[in-house]
Amino acid sequence: MTKTTTTYFKDVPTIQYEGAASTNPYAFKYYNPDEVVGGKTMAEQLRFSVAYWHTLTQDGADPFGAGTAKRPWDHLSGMDQAKARVEAAFEFIDKVQAPFFCFHDIDIAPEGSTLAETNKNLDVIVAMIKDYMQTSNVKLLWNTANMFTHPRFVSGAGTSSNANVYAYAAAKVKKGLEVGKELGAENYVFWGGREGYESLLNTDLKLELDNLARFYHMAIAYSKEINFNPQFLIEPKPKEPSTHQYDFDVATATAFLHQYDLQDHFKFNIEANHATLAGHTFEHELRTARIQGMLGSVDANQGDPLLGWDTDEFPTDLYSATLAMYEILKNGGLGKGGLNFDAKVRRGSFDPEDLFHSHIAGMDSFAIGLKVANKMIEDNFFESIVGKRYETFQEGIGKKIVEGKTDFHELEKHALGLGEIDHASGQVEKIKAQLNNYLLRVNQL
Amino acid sequence: MTKTTTTYFKDVPTIQYEGAASTNPYAFKYYNPDEVVGGKTMAEQLRFSVAYWHTLTQDGADPFGAGTAKRPWDHLSGMDQAKARVEAAFEFIDKVQAPFFCFHDIDIAPEGSTLAETNKNLDVIVAMIKDYMQTSNVKLLWNTANMFTHPRFVSGAGTSSNANVYAYAAAKVKKGLEVGKELGAENYVFWGGREGYESLLNTDLKLELDNLARFYHMAIAYSKEINFNPQFLIEPKPKEPSTHQYDFDVATATAFLHQYDLQDHFKFNIEANHATLAGHTFEHELRTARIQGMLGSVDANQGDPLLGWDTDEFPTDLYSATLAMYEILKNGGLGKGGLNFDAKVRRGSFDPEDLFHSHIAGMDSFAIGLKVANKMIEDNFFESIVGKRYETFQEGIGKKIVEGKTDFHELEKHALGLGEIDHASGQVEKIKAQLNNYLLRVNQL
Amino acid sequence: MTKTTTTYFKDVPTIQYEGAASTNPYAFKYYNPDEVVGGKTMAEQLRFSVAYWHTLTQDGADPFGAGTAKRPWDHLSGMDQAKARVEAAFEFIDKVQAPFFCFHDIDIAPEGSTLAETNKNLDVIVAMIKDYMQTSNVKLLWNTANMFTHPRFVSGAGTSSNANVYAYAAAKVKKGLEVGKELGAENYVFWGGREGYESLLNTDLKLELDNLARFYHMAIAYSKEINFNPQFLIEPKPKEPSTHQYDFDVATATAFLHQYDLQDHFKFNIEANHATLAGHTFEHELRTARIQGMLGSVDANQGDPLLGWDTDEFPTDLYSATLAMYEILKNGGLGKGGLNFDAKVRRGSFDPEDLFHSHIAGMDSFAIGLKVANKMIEDNFFESIVGKRYETFQEGIGKKIVEGKTDFHELEKHALGLGEIDHASGQVEKIKAQLNNYLLRVNQL
Amino acid sequence: MTKTTTTYFKDVPTIQYEGAASTNPYAFKYYNPDEVVGGKTMAEQLRFSVAYWHTLTQDGADPFGAGTAKRPWDHLSGMDQAKARVEAAFEFIDKVQAPFFCFHDIDIAPEGSTLAETNKNLDVIVAMIKDYMQTSNVKLLWNTANMFTHPRFVSGAGTSSNANVYAYAAAKVKKGLEVGKELGAENYVFWGGREGYESLLNTDLKLELDNLARFYHMAIAYSKEINFNPQFLIEPKPKEPSTHQYDFDVATATAFLHQYDLQDHFKFNIEANHATLAGHTFEHELRTARIQGMLGSVDANQGDPLLGWDTDEFPTDLYSATLAMYEILKNGGLGKGGLNFDAKVRRGSFDPEDLFHSHIAGMDSFAIGLKVANKMIEDNFFESIVGKRYETFQEGIGKKIVEGKTDFHELEKHALGLGEIDHASGQVEKIKAQLNNYLLRVNQL
Repeated sequence: MTKTTTTYFKDVPTIQYEGAASTNPYAFKYYNPDEVVGGKTMAEQLRFSVAYWHTLTQDGADPFGAGTAKRPWDHLSGMDQAKARVEAAFEFIDKVQAPFFCFHDIDIAPEGSTLAETNKNLDVIVAMIKDYMQTSNVKLLWNTANMFTHPRFVSGAGTSSNANVYAYAAAKVKKGLEVGKELGAENYVFWGGREGYESLLNTDLKLELDNLARFYHMAIAYSKEINFNPQFLIEPKPKEPSTHQYDFDVATATAFLHQYDLQDHFKFNIEANHATLAGHTFEHELRTARIQGMLGSVDANQGDPLLGWDTDEFPTDLYSATLAMYEILKNGGLGKGGLNFDAKVRRGSFDPEDLFHSHIAGMDSFAIGLKVANKMIEDNFFESIVGKRYETFQEGIGKKIVEGKTDFHELEKHALGLGEIDHASGQVEKIKAQLNNYLLRVNQL
Repeated sequence: MTKTTTTYFKDVPTIQYEGAASTNPYAFKYYNPDEVVGGKTMAEQLRFSVAYWHTLTQDGADPFGAGTAKRPWDHLSGMDQAKARVEAAFEFIDKVQAPFFCFHDIDIAPEGSTLAETNKNLDVIVAMIKDYMQTSNVKLLWNTANMFTHPRFVSGAGTSSNANVYAYAAAKVKKGLEVGKELGAENYVFWGGREGYESLLNTDLKLELDNLARFYHMAIAYSKEINFNPQFLIEPKPKEPSTHQYDFDVATATAFLHQYDLQDHFKFNIEANHATLAGHTFEHELRTARIQGMLGSVDANQGDPLLGWDTDEFPTDLYSATLAMYEILKNGGLGKGGLNFDAKVRRGSFDPEDLFHSHIAGMDSFAIGLKVANKMIEDNFFESIVGKRYETFQEGIGKKIVEGKTDFHELEKHALGLGEIDHASGQVEKIKAQLNNYLLRVNQL
Repeated sequence: MTKTTTTYFKDVPTIQYEGAASTNPYAFKYYNPDEVVGGKTMAEQLRFSVAYWHTLTQDGADPFGAGTAKRPWDHLSGMDQAKARVEAAFEFIDKVQAPFFCFHDIDIAPEGSTLAETNKNLDVIVAMIKDYMQTSNVKLLWNTANMFTHPRFVSGAGTSSNANVYAYAAAKVKKGLEVGKELGAENYVFWGGREGYESLLNTDLKLELDNLARFYHMAIAYSKEINFNPQFLIEPKPKEPSTHQYDFDVATATAFLHQYDLQDHFKFNIEANHATLAGHTFEHELRTARIQGMLGSVDANQGDPLLGWDTDEFPTDLYSATLAMYEILKNGGLGKGGLNFDAKVRRGSFDPEDLFHSHIAGMDSFAIGLKVANKMIEDNFFESIVGKRYETFQEGIGKKIVEGKTDFHELEKHALGLGEIDHASGQVEKIKAQLNNYLLRVNQL
Repeated sequence: MTKTTTTYFKDVPTIQYEGAASTNPYAFKYYNPDEVVGGKTMAEQLRFSVAYWHTLTQDGADPFGAGTAKRPWDHLSGMDQAKARVEAAFEFIDKVQAPFFCFHDIDIAPEGSTLAETNKNLDVIVAMIKDYMQTSNVKLLWNTANMFTHPRFVSGAGTSSNANVYAYAAAKVKKGLEVGKELGAENYVFWGGREGYESLLNTDLKLELDNLARFYHMAIAYSKEINFNPQFLIEPKPKEPSTHQYDFDVATATAFLHQYDLQDHFKFNIEANHATLAGHTFEHELRTARIQGMLGSVDANQGDPLLGWDTDEFPTDLYSATLAMYEILKNGGLGKGGLNFDAKVRRGSFDPEDLFHSHIAGMDSFAIGLKVANKMIEDNFFESIVGKRYETFQEGIGKKIVEGKTDFHELEKHALGLGEIDHASGQVEKIKAQLNNYLLRVNQL
């Protein structure tokens, strides 16, 4: 295959680090790929990934309006458009210096009129992508099968009320695993867009959950069979498009995995906006996964706290980026995972250049978060707060509790002998002010 | 002990069933204790319980205002008031014909200046209650220890940051188990009001969860030791008073129980308003517990869908009551559990008579729900909808899926051979209309 | 024009009233058009309207998936499809016995490549509709211009950041008024889907609001000029698609109308689901409009209280329907307005028959609401509750307050002379139980 | 009166500005009272105020638990405690260098058993405060009457269902105006905690609103009568404690003021947490008030976006503080108003020192916000974005629109002549990144 010399974003240069004082909109102010922070380069720590669907495929449509995005491949269609997008993707990813990308099957190749034809389309584009990857540093963070857009998935895929759809979904995941193997994907993600219910009134909840577990067991078996060993990831989301999604949050998915003996095969892909829709902070979901050794990867975005749907905004909130990076650093990094920008430019940001502005915004925000979080860890900031607050568990009755060496008799006896208990203030206002001060000193780091 | 002949609610008669046409405000229009529905009497099916705290102890205070409730025991204080409340409780419970009641330790007896004194106060009142129970049909559905009101529990009880508080909490639960045994409680409930965190910034999440699991293991061990075998119940709630509560919902608590090998020792006490605060319907939480055999008991109330806090309203929504009773009937009833009115009269409903009006409202609503749900079950209403919707899982590839006898190879082959898949409409609008029609025919049942 | 003899819904008969005992899914159980309730026929009281967009045009797509709806006109496109939809519309509306319909311009005719062509398409279909209306009893409740779907309206229409778009929007409304006149519309509705902002960071709030007011003044002037006197209606919605919509709720739009001296030219078209998204009950919005004489029309639907977006479900909640009909009856009816089913079948209810099931569900629900509300009014139910609760305003100092004949001196003197104030309980639990009892007796009305 | 020499916070020094590099917890890192920013000193720009209720009176109680706060006046009660609080208040306010304070009547003096006695208590404390003010630089930003805590206000004050309560409320406001005059208050605030309804089922909405308007007219008349001319402020809040509060948000209160011809007598006191509970950003509410000339004062706090109640946290979010200060600077400052910390330390921050930490956190945050916002204004940052985005309104048809010199005929003609409309991207992601960069450069300002 002869590669194109077309450039799709000819007015935009490769984005370079220029430092905080730069006023060049096409430069990183904080993300410096080779700068070492916490013992690794920023590129290694952050493992940024471009989401093919938002950046190459989506057009800015919303439930009340048609697409607004102006894209250099708008004049094409079908496989021609798909090929142009591959070319544009590699140009884009190279220019923003992201080391990874992610896709659903139908993001990269159009569906055909039969499954066989769809797979054939996919094969063509996968071969093209593989070819491009050979002369690029870009790697595949993860791929997945879109099992929510086509009408056949109206009632789910692995939880469909229809056995034929279930079989169809299995065929899509089988192909997805083969594609993942072909392209060397490091993870395989399950986001169950329609794995949930619209109404409990017509739903057999138990059958659907049982079937989903069977689906996962078969996927694991097939992956093993083809010697493809990605990290399997579940991506929780509480609702939308379903009224209730089965992978509501990390805790819910954990319960499911334990109930069906799947807990050793999965980690979590945690999305900020899904966390907040579930009523949690992003860092809560990260922490919940981390402390059970299941923090696998991150969908880096943010929601609007005043809106009740998934806005998938590019992440610019520095508090959130800092606390997320704290969890990731404490996790020893993301391993095979990465920071995937599951984020879309606003419908009003329709120029191709906005794709760059938004990625720069997100990458700089996480670079800032990394530097601030790393400094706080170096300073033992949170560790010393927590150490002091829980110090009564370091000795005496507290130590016995932690070591499991006491019982209600001894504890009651201890309690009966207590006078007024001396508490230490939680001082959360002071901590928040200190967090602000850390953040504002980032330019001194 | 000589029992009082004082009457606290002298203007209110024992509430009797008078039928739907009655206009007597002090009569049941639907709850007929001896009427047989679904093979048992209504009293057996519904197992209503009066919540001591809302009905005997609370005064209508809210964060912006003092108590408004006018109660016949307002002029008393301390142990005198506690004793008067016991007398009033038994009069009230008898008059509303509820077979059960529930309490936290500090609902029934005032705290002393030391734990020893508190326990002594408790012993006096427990003895008095036991005496009253001997000449009454009222039984104790469950008791629990309040570990959230006193300032010492500011940072939790079994998850406190302070080991002394942890010991104090253990002593309270130890006493609670002894009280439960003494009064023949059928269940013991854990609602972790402060078992959660205010801010993740100063919280050791893992230590707190580990400690909580240790706490439960010790409680189980002690209960076994004293030959008291209540059904242990966890009551999920997502937030309030904590920013995040560890028992967020049924799924979250299920994950916790599995992670700490506690899953065989607990069922759930599910509260309607807690379900909705967690973003779920009441019936979702009931179903989620039911299909894993963990539906233990119910806190029957309702929230205001437009308010973001726990309003604990008396349950009058007939849709919710009907769908709840459907889950309970499909569960084969609640076993040792019951329908506890964890519900408080509004601050503006401050007359003693409102306590009766509200219980009548709640009891009639669940009686209606029982009758309608039972009729739908007799008609196989939901079962036939679900049966038809999932019929492809009854044979062929669907049967193989359900029986675990297929794999991705066979499923792909099946999928490749499919033409357009024929779906059956979910027809949820039709089902909702039918549900309305069932409801409006309750007077013909 | 020769009318088609094609039938689009050949398996569905005209829906007739058969009474509550009917099990015919294609029959009304409560809606009996000729039955007199509250001095008028049900048809006159309820003034049902079919929403062209949801019933004829939409396909069940959502942000995560393509359309699922199976419609008899799916094989057609462009003007052929538009014409088929008109034929189907009149068949449908006749069969469900709705006296009205409503549409946006682009619901009925496809947009052309220029405004002139769009208008020409519109003229063809309007002529066809007019022709059909002459031999039908169906009338046009209202029409409007869709100024949110096309990409040009990305930043609003009357509040666009671009003056050319503003002009384009004016041209669309001008045409809409002409179409309304041509078809005898009783109202003209403004729903400002993109009249709001995505982010305050790039928004000139004052200019946008000023421009919107100018837009309305010009619309009123033009309507007057062409001797078309519809009731102008504003339809509030708080958010979606915009982050903030300028017509957030009735109160917000009222403030706007007063600030720009437009208050005498508008009433409100109140949608249930928009009310709840704004944090209000449906009845709150109806009451707020009613007491200022601005309750104009209703978009009859319902939302899911646990979801944060506009679900536009068919209304089946009998509490909501009853309380809405109470407001409407107290308003002396809706005048020129009606009950428009701005409601869509769920994505999983994709059969053509579901369009009938859902309209039957909605029409029966409001018929029930009408009967129950009318009975409560005949019984002076709410009036006597309120009369008693506020009785202190009937005489003495209260009467002086209401008549504006007192001042702070006299009120202070009165207050200084008061002992403990005797309040009457609000008794809301009792009222809710009584509301249930009214509802369950509907089959006796 | 001889002033006390007691010190209540003896371990805490007067808080001084030490700059961003300081690690002294009892120092300002950004708030430098005498530093000139935007042509005025920080003290003049920010006009900080201490809220007496949160800082001197509250004890950390919440709906599920008793007070936790440890205060140096806990051992006192009644008037003795009230006097100690005055002493402590002046020490505290001096030490945190806030130029203002605010109170409700019952914050400063206990209620007596009669209104006369309550007023007498108030007189004593007001005299004491006046005395302290004479030797202090502290001034009264505003006072108000608490008409929500006492049970008599269960159904409201100016909207009570009981005329005697209405009179009582009038007497309280009359006294409040007299107190305000005595102490030289710059504003008088109405926050209607119980001015709303619990349920529409027993509420006469119109009568309540009419009565409220009469109440305000009488208050204005009395104020004029006594030659006291504060800025009257309405403080919007959407819900809590009432289910629906009449002053839901700025727009709702604006509608009310216009409907009752009160719009010239009031401005708004805008609280951040109330804004978010109403579904708006803080800056939205500020802007909405500002563009109609009604931005009067600010209750500076923040909420938790994941919690559905008013958490009244100290403001530390720098985005919010910056955007708020932008609105305030564009308003030409707050005039008679100020930044009142209507914020309470968390229940877990129970030490007296936390009162200082929290005020330092809030004051530094707004100082940062001031510096960043001022820099953006100096740079014409938002102005140039908006100027460019709306530039089509500067000439041609756009200019005619803005000047009101066009009509639908001309606009249609213009539209018919348009080709594809050229939009400018909203670029919100780029703007957010720039905002981050401004923020992180604050130490260079």
